Parts: sequence; structure tokens; C-alpha cells
Amino acid sequence: MQIGILGTGTVGRALAEGFVRTGHDVFVGTRDVHATTVRPMDGGPPGSMADWLADHPSIALVDLPSAAGSAEVVINATNGAGSLDALTAAGAEHLTGKVLIDVANPLDFSAGFPPTLAIKDTDSLGELIQRTFPQARVVKALSTLTAALMTRPDLLPEPTTLPIAGDDPAAKSVVTDLLEQFGWMDVLDLGDISNARGLEMWLPLWLRTLGALGTPLFNLRIVRAPTEA
Amino acid sequence: MQIGILGTGTVGRALAEGFVRTGHDVFVGTRDVHATTVRPMDGGPPGSMADWLADHPSIALVDLPSAAGSAEVVINATNGAGSLDALTAAGAEHLTGKVLIDVANPLDFSAGFPPTLAIKDTDSLGELIQRTFPQARVVKALSTLTAALMTRPDLLPEPTTLPIAGDDPAAKSVVTDLLEQFGWMDVLDLGDISNARGLEMWLPLWLRTLGALGTPLFNLRIVRAPTEA
Repeated sequence: MQIGILGTGTVGRALAEGFVRTGHDVFVGTRDVHATTVRPMDGGPPGSMADWLADHPSIALVDLPSAAGSAEVVINATNGAGSLDALTAAGAEHLTGKVLIDVANPLDFSAGFPPTLAIKDTDSLGELIQRTFPQARVVKALSTLTAALMTRPDLLPEPTTLPIAGDDPAAKSVVTDLLEQFGWMDVLDLGDISNARGLEMWLPLWLRTLGALGTPLFNLRIVRAPTEA
Repeated sequence: MQIGILGTGTVGRALAEGFVRTGHDVFVGTRDVHATTVRPMDGGPPGSMADWLADHPSIALVDLPSAAGSAEVVINATNGAGSLDALTAAGAEHLTGKVLIDVANPLDFSAGFPPTLAIKDTDSLGELIQRTFPQARVVKALSTLTAALMTRPDLLPEPTTLPIAGDDPAAKSVVTDLLEQFGWMDVLDLGDISNARGLEMWLPLWLRTLGALGTPLFNLRIVRAPTEA
């Protein structure tokens, strides 16, 4: 498929690499292609995006409207605080009818670490994006774990759980197929997009588990009791 | 140990049974012993608390001050909305120096199901209780899963994780010992009581997982990447 990834940070790059590895055509979108290309990589290894692109010759860095416009599946891998702006810049017309995977979290770092949530409890970023772009088919997914594990669940020693939420069953089916290509074996459909509240409110526990373990290389596994025979 | 459990609902009764099973002396506290004894059991099997007490002859039902006053470890197993009132009725003087395990969640059902959180993100019920009763040694624990699993982690087919939070390391050590007696093998200390925010904000995802699975008989397991040799 043609995958358009909005955002060039750790998450955007990890997803780009993952989708290339699983055989897709990847366009990564950024607001200013030249500026992004020459500046140091955000949260990444030493070097610029130009170095990263040289290492990933099949990945094209384009502007936001081009990344969304050429894609069958669009991924919001931008900072939660800037997601609506980025999606608006990508163009609502380029999101119409598209599966839009929302990976962002509405983190608010204004009071330091751990961050609080700018949206929560009675609303979520996933719902806000769905309301703002009603023609997009939003699926909240992959927001619940660190970038390095999103496309490599096999880095953990046992299968873990990936909750998803969205209003459109067909869109969730497309997303589940893409996730299974990464090796996800326990994609848990929580229901409509209001359930994005559950995914996003997991972050406070995720952040504190990060603090306790000293590594982001963990994920939750939902362990069920055996069903009665 | 002498364990004083405040609350006679599903959680209080499950914990009472668990602490008796692991060899402790249990007092269950309620506001009005007579009224609680004769009315139908809250969220329980058919019958009254009198029936339950008849089945559990070693457990004493007493008033809130007596349950807290006689105890070495006090457990807040009351409804989150009523916890401060119940603890106040138990008496701050009966909580001084005591380990106080806070199992409650600040659920707000005023808008229906799933409930929202009355306290969240920049505060938590655990912190509120610690601030209100500064002489108590509050440990948030067991609030992250259904009552039936709190003292029976072996009902799940593999070990799962129980996060705890509190300011007092010695109190957390006491609680961890009690939890290990129930069979908990992965008690994860998140740090000071502000980390109760993480435990309580897990509830929205817990509630939606309940909806998706159709059973509360599940828990999270934090799966870590192997540490490098």
C-alpha cells in the first residue's frame, strides 16, 4: 500500500522503516522539506534527516499535502500538541475516505516530567481528530508503546497486546492487517473512537512504569482467565 | 497481622477472605453494623451480610473506628466517592502511624457507563487521602484489577503485574509482603504517592478492556525486553 506518514520524529521514522520492511511504499511528510532535511534529527541518532534518507533510499521526504495526498493510509505521527495543525496543513481533502492511524498522545509538558494530558477523561485527541476531519476514518493505534517496539513486537520475549479504537470497522480491519504484518498477534479492538480515551489515559501509567523500569522497552499484555469449557 | 478493612462491598469481602486464608485476623468495618448485617449484600451473591458472616466465622463485622483502631494495617475498600468520609468516620487518630492500603478508585458514574474520574492527571485519590491523613502511611495498591483476582492471582494462567505507589518505603515493604502471601510475584513499586495517578488513570483502559472482553477476569502483565548481558 501507499503509506503517508506525517511527522519525522522518532515515531515517524520507526514507522517508515517498519512499513518499508513489510513491503509498502512510504512517503514521509514534513512542513518544510528543506529545513527538516538539514537540521539534526529529532530524538534520533547523530546526523541529519539527509543522512537517514541516504540510509533509506526507498523513502521519500515530501511536504504534508503530498504525503497525505498520495497515500491510501495516512499516519499521524506528529506531536500531539501539533497534530490538528499538521493535519490541517496536510489538507482535509487529502484525508477524505482515508484510513487515518492516530499514533499521537496529547501530552502536556508545561509542568515538566512526567507530562500531564491536555485532553482526557471526557474527550480524547483521537475523537478530536475524528470530529475535526469527519471524512477521515480515524483509528487510534500504536500510541501505547515506545517507537522501537511499534513495528517490532518480537523484541519482547512474549506476545503483548495492542489496543485499537475507531468508528469504522473496515478501517480497523485494514489497520489490523498492517499490524499483523509487523507481527502483532493480540490486536484488541475496544470499539468506537471514544475508546481512544482508554488508550490515551494509559500514558500516565506507561510513563511511571518507564520511570520504575528505567527503560521504555516494555509493553502491556492483557492476561485473560481461561474461558470455561 | 490484625487487618482492618473499611467497606463491606465486593472488594472488602474478597480482601477479608484473602487475608483470612493467608492467616491474618480480619475486622471488617462498616458505618452501621446492624443495617449492613440485615440488608442484601452489595454486589454479591444472594443473601445478607449475616449469611456471609455465618460462612466466615473468624471475621468480625464492627464499626469503622473499631475496624481501624484494632488494626495494624487498614484497608480502604470503600467507594471512591465516599472514601474521605469513611476514613474520617474511622478516625484520623486510628490511622496515625498505620499502613493504609488504598484500593479505591475515584469513579464518577454521574454520566453513566463507563464512568469518568472525579480526580485525575494532576492529582489522585491516593494523594488526597495522604494529604488529608498525613500521619497515615498510604500505599495505593490492588486498585487496578477486579476483586476476584486481588487475592487470587493464580486464577490467571500466568503471572501478572501489580503496580503500587506510596511515600513510605517501610509501608510498601509491609504491603509487598502481604501481596506476596496472596501469590503476587511482580509487585512493581512506581515510587511516591503521586504515582497513584498512574494506577487510577489505568481505569479508563481497564473499563474498556472489560467491555471488549466481556469479563473482568483479566490483568495487565508488564512484559520487559530482555536486559542486555
